[in-house]
Amino acid sequence: MSGLKFELKKKDPQSKARLGEITTGHGKIQTPIFMPVGTAGTVKSVHTREIKEDINAEIILGNTYHLYLRPKLEILEKAGGLHKFNGWDRPILTDSGGYQVFSLGDMRKITEEGVLFRSHIDGSKHLFTPENVMDTQRTIGADIIMAFDECTPYPCDYAYAKNSMERTHRWLQRCVDRFDSTDPKYGYHQSLFPIVQGSTFKDLRIKSAETIASFGREGNAIGGLSVGEPAEDMYEMTDLVTDILPEDKPRYLMGVGTPANILEGIALGVDMFDCVMPTRNARNGMLFTTQGVINIKNLKWADDFSPIDEELGGYVSTFYSKAYLRHLIHAKEILAAQIASIHNLTFYLWLVREARKHIEAGDFREWKDVMVKKLMTRL
Amino acid sequence: MSGLKFELKKKDPQSKARLGEITTGHGKIQTPIFMPVGTAGTVKSVHTREIKEDINAEIILGNTYHLYLRPKLEILEKAGGLHKFNGWDRPILTDSGGYQVFSLGDMRKITEEGVLFRSHIDGSKHLFTPENVMDTQRTIGADIIMAFDECTPYPCDYAYAKNSMERTHRWLQRCVDRFDSTDPKYGYHQSLFPIVQGSTFKDLRIKSAETIASFGREGNAIGGLSVGEPAEDMYEMTDLVTDILPEDKPRYLMGVGTPANILEGIALGVDMFDCVMPTRNARNGMLFTTQGVINIKNLKWADDFSPIDEELGGYVSTFYSKAYLRHLIHAKEILAAQIASIHNLTFYLWLVREARKHIEAGDFREWKDVMVKKLMTRL
Repeated sequence: MSGLKFELKKKDPQSKARLGEITTGHGKIQTPIFMPVGTAGTVKSVHTREIKEDINAEIILGNTYHLYLRPKLEILEKAGGLHKFNGWDRPILTDSGGYQVFSLGDMRKITEEGVLFRSHIDGSKHLFTPENVMDTQRTIGADIIMAFDECTPYPCDYAYAKNSMERTHRWLQRCVDRFDSTDPKYGYHQSLFPIVQGSTFKDLRIKSAETIASFGREGNAIGGLSVGEPAEDMYEMTDLVTDILPEDKPRYLMGVGTPANILEGIALGVDMFDCVMPTRNARNGMLFTTQGVINIKNLKWADDFSPIDEELGGYVSTFYSKAYLRHLIHAKEILAAQIASIHNLTFYLWLVREARKHIEAGDFREWKDVMVKKLMTRL
Repeated sequence: MSGLKFELKKKDPQSKARLGEITTGHGKIQTPIFMPVGTAGTVKSVHTREIKEDINAEIILGNTYHLYLRPKLEILEKAGGLHKFNGWDRPILTDSGGYQVFSLGDMRKITEEGVLFRSHIDGSKHLFTPENVMDTQRTIGADIIMAFDECTPYPCDYAYAKNSMERTHRWLQRCVDRFDSTDPKYGYHQSLFPIVQGSTFKDLRIKSAETIASFGREGNAIGGLSVGEPAEDMYEMTDLVTDILPEDKPRYLMGVGTPANILEGIALGVDMFDCVMPTRNARNGMLFTTQGVINIKNLKWADDFSPIDEELGGYVSTFYSKAYLRHLIHAKEILAAQIASIHNLTFYLWLVREARKHIEAGDFREWKDVMVKKLMTRL
């Protein structure tokens, strides 16, 4: 059972962008990569074969909070882990559940021990601690497991951000202690990634990045961004942190973002991204295309019988027309969510693939500057 | 532009079951056949390639009422008809909209002229007449167009059933006059099927079947059944009617039904079936399998990691487990509807394919008697 490997293949001469390859117990991941979110063990409205064959995803996410509550750990363990349960045989990353439980507002209480919360499903009480969250992710069977942290809200005052960050660091030590004293359950290696916090305060971000890096884990994540702060702040914090996080380990910018955010993140030395935006916005009729952003509900598409995105290619984007998809979304047909989700995720995976090509070719920055403008166009 | 052809290939020696082949402008249909319902231009939650490649459907339905209201005729005509609009290039049959508008209750008013009704979407007023319903179906571009009839409710008193049937016959003459004086819009042949009514009254059913048959159209339908009457009454009426409808034309039993209903219908000489049951029940977690009926919500499937239906074969039925599908439906995930709908439709198409094999082999009746019992088992 070998550990996670990260091979740094190439660095862009004009930015901090890097080309890499992660090897896990469920195969390789080319970086920079976007990871579709499979909240409750499913990427919403997308069949497993579509995630592989249409979207070409190399790794997906699972949400610990959701999976813990339903189908529950007993079922996942009996199944032999999430891969066996949902049939996805490539790598899986799970978040720690922290983000969800902190979002529960008055349905949760934070102490040094952990977070006491009520289930949004049936109101039942549960306690997440750094230790049991490691055990839970071991049981889910993710290839990459995230530390239990607090994702601070934005805006956040300095004192709160500092206290929260320090607790996140203490919790990290407890996560590491528990993780390193337990074994994987299903015969393949699992990696623990710690998470940098510190809100939008430079000194806290630097301190947190140094602390996290000192743990010497197999990869590192940047949390607490893309939570409402201006994009410039997100880029500034990311830039600071990637200067500190070790170059020979993959870097994951959590919950980011728009296509433009992802390209800027790549330019700042980030290797991994995830976001619900491509699937959530799809369900509301917002499409990301190679030509810009489309609100497919708009009247202008009612009689546009051209394919959704000819240049992107792939089944849904070339087979179905804009007019047909508009009809489906107005008729509240499930197929609308299916088509738009596959399309948007195919676009996101195309985007990181193109980025890799341009890092390889050595013209990433020029390409990125053109694309960022193009992708923000409203069609 | 050649007409609809029906080749009667074989008759079962021990029942009225028949093996046939219908040729349309969009290809051939092997009968007996089940036709998935694509209400608003989509078989709910199923991609077009899945209808073809997984479900192996040979013809699908569209609902005139729904398509007329949304996306509306203007869009369908600009698209070049429904086939071009939704990308389904095999045959399409449309109902007349009569069933839906009669179901609107106090939102509709019946006169000799037609039915005045209010849209369920925005309350706007519309009039369906035998004439404009022919024009509408011409514009939708169905290969098989249904006459505008009244599907009588059950129970229904004799006087109402008789008056309604007589009006349906008068309307049929108006449908035929309009249909025969207009041309297809998109360069392929369209056929008009009249509909036998008469509720559960033998003399009315006989009268209606004789009247309908006398029009000498390219196919005939049996309506007003599977609306709440006992199954025995449905079979008795069907049996009476198929003795009268011409043998050399396809016979379509509208809105039927359960797997057992379909096998009994085939035994009574019916060639075509449609029903929302496989997709509607799928969305509620009811699965039709080769071993019997499953309510996938039940606790007994929570840790059953066996495939949904190994014997049926096909991607969704062998790739996903019962436990996973149960989880998805409890978690209200869209993927649950997708998996269950493909599964149930695959089962329905498998069922009619098996029926055809047994008619071909000459042992249809023995096989049918065994299958009807098996398929009604609750697992």
